[in-house]
This record gives sequence, structure tokens and C-alpha cells, in this order.
Amino acid sequence: MKFTIARNTFIKKLNAVQRAISSKTTIPILTGLKIEAENDRLILTGSNTDISIETTIATSDEDAHLDIESTGSIVLMARFFSDIVKKLPDNTMLLEVSDGFQTTITSGASEFKINGLDANNFPRLPEVDSQTTITLNADVFSEMINETVIAVSTQESRPILTGIHFTIEGNKLSAVATDSHRLSQRVINLPETVKMPEDIIIPGKSLLELARMLDDEIETITLQISENQALFTFDETLFYSRLLEGLYPDTSRLIPKESSTEMEFEAPELLASIERASLLSHAGRNNVVKLTINAESKKVIISGDSPEVGNVEEEVVTKDVNGEDLEISFNPDYLKDALRSFGHTSIKMAFTSPLRPFTLVPTEDQENFIQLITPVRTF
Amino acid sequence: MKFTIARNTFIKKLNAVQRAISSKTTIPILTGLKIEAENDRLILTGSNTDISIETTIATSDEDAHLDIESTGSIVLMARFFSDIVKKLPDNTMLLEVSDGFQTTITSGASEFKINGLDANNFPRLPEVDSQTTITLNADVFSEMINETVIAVSTQESRPILTGIHFTIEGNKLSAVATDSHRLSQRVINLPETVKMPEDIIIPGKSLLELARMLDDEIETITLQISENQALFTFDETLFYSRLLEGLYPDTSRLIPKESSTEMEFEAPELLASIERASLLSHAGRNNVVKLTINAESKKVIISGDSPEVGNVEEEVVTKDVNGEDLEISFNPDYLKDALRSFGHTSIKMAFTSPLRPFTLVPTEDQENFIQLITPVRTF
Repeated sequence: MKFTIARNTFIKKLNAVQRAISSKTTIPILTGLKIEAENDRLILTGSNTDISIETTIATSDEDAHLDIESTGSIVLMARFFSDIVKKLPDNTMLLEVSDGFQTTITSGASEFKINGLDANNFPRLPEVDSQTTITLNADVFSEMINETVIAVSTQESRPILTGIHFTIEGNKLSAVATDSHRLSQRVINLPETVKMPEDIIIPGKSLLELARMLDDEIETITLQISENQALFTFDETLFYSRLLEGLYPDTSRLIPKESSTEMEFEAPELLASIERASLLSHAGRNNVVKLTINAESKKVIISGDSPEVGNVEEEVVTKDVNGEDLEISFNPDYLKDALRSFGHTSIKMAFTSPLRPFTLVPTEDQENFIQLITPVRTF
Repeated sequence: MKFTIARNTFIKKLNAVQRAISSKTTIPILTGLKIEAENDRLILTGSNTDISIETTIATSDEDAHLDIESTGSIVLMARFFSDIVKKLPDNTMLLEVSDGFQTTITSGASEFKINGLDANNFPRLPEVDSQTTITLNADVFSEMINETVIAVSTQESRPILTGIHFTIEGNKLSAVATDSHRLSQRVINLPETVKMPEDIIIPGKSLLELARMLDDEIETITLQISENQALFTFDETLFYSRLLEGLYPDTSRLIPKESSTEMEFEAPELLASIERASLLSHAGRNNVVKLTINAESKKVIISGDSPEVGNVEEEVVTKDVNGEDLEISFNPDYLKDALRSFGHTSIKMAFTSPLRPFTLVPTEDQENFIQLITPVRTF
């Protein structure tokens, strides 16, 4: 194998594939990056137990200045190889594999010789031979991931809750995540009606890596599903994630249909108040803040209290308050995450009782995006 | 005590004083910030076992909008108090201390009540009643610190080497640091001839904190020395550092007066080569790179080698090479630190033998700045 390539393009592709490569894995070859040179393209592959990423650089890509002199394949230690490529002196680099997997990298006056591994020992990527392809708007899907992933569980005690649960009905794709203390649900419209064989659960961590790869240049991505893998395709890149096995809990019954107290406000206003109140709740032993709603005077007070350190109290700027008076306590970090997921928008918050979950929805789009938080009993 | 103040100005001063406050100290009151309100000014003080910082905000400072309603003093948990002040909603804030050291902080609709401590229990700052005041250009002194502190020892086995050694002769101030593997020495001209009672050793860590405080707005600082304290004064701020006790080794005899091989180059050129070579030396067991100088052909090769991983070799771009052929091995990290301290400038490197220290000086100012590195025996 022997090729020259523009370093800039190569580094960009290396960075993408490295998202799938862990330096901590117990399987040595998986700390490696597989490079294959075919007649008209270079294929880079990285893999761990959760995700695999394969990306292609074609000789027809003008920015890449890719010139393949001879084909072949090699596995190189990913982190180390990438450090070398990033520090090379010249705009282009030459990579050549000789006997015994020794690899020479030349750029300007600099010449590295490093030991590689036999690419035949690199695990093969899963096969996804689905007939159904779901087309997704990259921006919207990336937003959907970021909005729901906050509620994914980080505890391995119930592995199924570490994933986001996707279902399709007609042309509506729904994503739900819950760690059993809070829940986030988002529904988006698909460009076309598709039939998904069944619902799927994709690990939250995989989806976060995917979302980070979806930069502004990528407009659409496609999703195919096999028995235990999801395959996302975009921009000459294949992104595989394993699926979580098991039955996702029925979350639809958790969302209350009615409410007895409602308030409306701008998300950043309440977020700032909650951040101040949580300074004190974090200093204390139990991380709880209290919201006191007086419906008649339309006055809402948020307070945090820590016997050792002190307390804070402030009136929240609201746009409207309706219903019954209420005093409710909750973990401020859950509300912070939820409010951040909405960005700069007007929010409607609805309560039924001090011990029942409360919900937040954008005032302008109450059907498709909901955040739910379970309160804390303090008496 | 009761005062109102502009939050921006207050935050800037809090940040300065916090450099002296550690949250890890075993003396609880030292995790606190002391605030004193006098008739015409506010004094903030922070202290740890190495440094103390006291800064003043005057009622005459227009940006501060400081209005002192009643005088007094209090100690507040520094980190926590500063988090609160940073998150307050309004441009101004009111601070009021009531009975039992309870402190109320009000800003906009937000009201914090936090527990303070009796300021009488806060340790008193050292007294520095020196007759001699040394005036320093802030930029030049800050540069001097950053250039020499790289060679300060991080090991507590020889505490004296964790400091920078300052001496004055006439109007020349000299700073030296060495960890016994390398040495950095810088001499600067003082605006006027001063007599310093004796040489002093200031902890490197203290000086780094000081250098970070010297922003572009500060033009000159003054230094006073007492028996065991150095006091730097600038911009309404007093910065105290303890001095290290003991005899600093005689470093003048370490610097070779003659050389048998010299090379000249641009610092960034060699730095880039060394960074590449150190990728391999870091991967191997002994962190060493080799410089091979062929004087006749004026060719300089830098190489790094790690049997398990591979090797790298490249020709260094030099401006001139003179003297005898040489092969010398050293820790590339020492050379990286030294080259970075010079910035973008032309450097003269001088060698006597493969086992004797070599030196680097700026081509344009060979007298006042020298970096020395001890090589490693590899045979």
C-alpha cells in the first residue's frame, strides 16, 4: 500500500473515525485505525463494542489530492498515528507499508517509521441489509437527540434506560428517554411516511457521538435498521450503533393529561433563578429547591435552603399564572437541563399536585416536545 | 456593615483576591474572604500559607459605584460567595451584615442570606517595613518570571529549588531557576540603581500567580523585602509572598564559558522538529531524543526511537553550524520548554561535549538570557 494525500482532508476524516476508537479497550487491535487503499478510494475504519465508523476518501475528491500508487491495508495505533499526522511539517504526506507491516510516513524533511498490525485481524463491520431506509433532516435529528439525551439514565442497573426509544407512526418519528426521575419526549415529522419494522432503542452515548459529527455541511442522513444494529449514512460516512435489547417501559401513561396549576415564562428567566437557587441546594445535603405559586396574586417564589450555609429566595418573572396555589420541591439540576434544552423560548409549565410529575412544553408547540420532572417529597 | 457596589468591579476584585484562597486548606477561616468596609473604601483580603492578597476599592472609583452606609467587617466562604455574586441578576448588589454574622446579599428580586465568620479571627497580614523599594516594569518582570519559572523544581525533596533566586548588582536584577537538570537565567535592567539587603528566593508558584495578575493595564509594580516576606504593590493591590529560607546553590559555575560546536536557527523551526521527535520518545520507555551535528556538511539530524513503536528522523532547518561534529541525547521536554520561552526569535545553541550541559541564547541578546540543559548518557 502506498499513497499520498493532503494532510488537512486526512486529519478531518481521522478525527471522525476516532470517535469510535477507544484507547481503553482490552482488545488491542481495536485501539487501531484500519486504513484500506482501493484503486479509487481510501477507507478508514474504527470500531468499539458500541459503535463503528467507516469513512471514505475518493480519488475524485479534489481537496484530498489523493494519489494511490498501490492498494493494500494496514492497522495503525489510532491515537499515536493521528498525533503524528497532525504534527507533520508539510501540506501533503506519503504513507507506505512495507514487509512486516512496517509503515513509513514521510512529509517534508520528516520521516516516521512505525509498526502496524495485520488488517485481516480487524473485526468485520456488521451487515445491515434492511429494505427500509428512513431519511432524516440532519439538523432536526441532531436537535432531537440533544433534547432527549439529557433524560437518558447514566446508571447501568437498568441498561434499557441508557438508550433513547424511537417509534414511528405514519410520518411521525418519536424519541423518548427517561431515567425514571424525569422524561423527555420529542416528535418530528419525517419527509415521507415509512414503515419501521418495530420500535428500537439506541444507546444515548452512540447518539451523542453521532450528533457531534453532524456539522452544518450535512443536510440529510439516512437510517437503516437490522436485527441488532442501526446504520446511519451521511457524507461518505457509515455510522453503526448496536441496539439495546429488551422492552422499553410504556412511557405514554406517565404523562399527565390534565393540570390544576399552570404558569408561563421565558425559559432563560427561570433558568437564571434556578441556577441561583441551586447554589444553595448544592451546598446543602439534599439537593432540592422549592417553588411556591400564589395563583391569585400571580406571584411565584423560588427558594433554596441549606441549614449550614444559608438560604436564597426570589420572585420569578412570569408571563402568566393560573389555577390553584401550590408548593412543590424538586431537584434543580433536572429543571436546569430541561430549560436549557428549550433554548430562548416561552414555556408553559403544568402541575397537578405536589407529589405528581409536572411538565414543561414550549408555548408555541405544545404537542411535539415535552419535558417531565418528578418532584421530591420533603415532608 | 452595609454597602452597595457595581457587580462588575466587585467581581474583578474578587477574582484577584481568590488567587490567594485555597478551598483545600485545613484552616477553615482561610477558605474565607475577608471584607472590610471603612469610611471611604472597601478592603478585600485572601490568604494561604504561601501568599496573601489585599486589594482596595475606593468610594472615589467611579466605575465601582461604591456606597458605604455603615462600616464593619466579615469573613465569607470565598468560592461560594463569589459564585453567588457572579450569578446575581442586577448590575448592582447590596451587602448587609446583621447580628450573628448573618449576611444578606440583595440584587434585583434575589435575596441570599448566608452565614459569615468573625473577621477578628482572620490572620493578620505580615508586616513589611523595608526602607528599600525596587520599582519594576510590570511587562518586563512578568516576562522574566515566565522565562525562568519553567526551570523551577516541582519536587519538594530540595525545597530551595522550588523558588526563583533573585540577586541585584547595581541596576541589574538577575533571576535564576534550576531543577538540577536544566537552568534558566534572565537579567533585566532596573530603572534605577538600588541596594537590595541580600539575595532572595521566592517560590515559583507565588510568582506565577503574581504574573497572572499583571494584565496590560498595570505598568509598574514595586517590590519591598522584609526578613521572610516579599511585598509587591500595584494598582491598589498588595501581593505578599513568603520567601524560601536557605542557601541557593552557586549556579554561575554551571554555565560553560566556551564551546566546541555551535548552531543557529529560528526557535519555532527546531521546536516543531522536537515536538515530532518527542511523539516517539514519549511512546518509548526512556524519553530521549538524539541530535546529530555534522559540521562540515552543516547538516543537523534530530531523531527519536522507541523499539516497540517505531522511529522518526528529520533534518533540522538551521541558519548556521560551526565547530566539531557531535552526537548528543537529551530529554526533549526540557528543550521544548526552553524554546517556547524564547518565542519567535533566532537562537544560538552551544555545545562542549556529549555529556556536558549545552546552552541556548537569543542571537540578538546573548548576555541577558540563557537556558541550559543537561544531556542524558545513552551509552
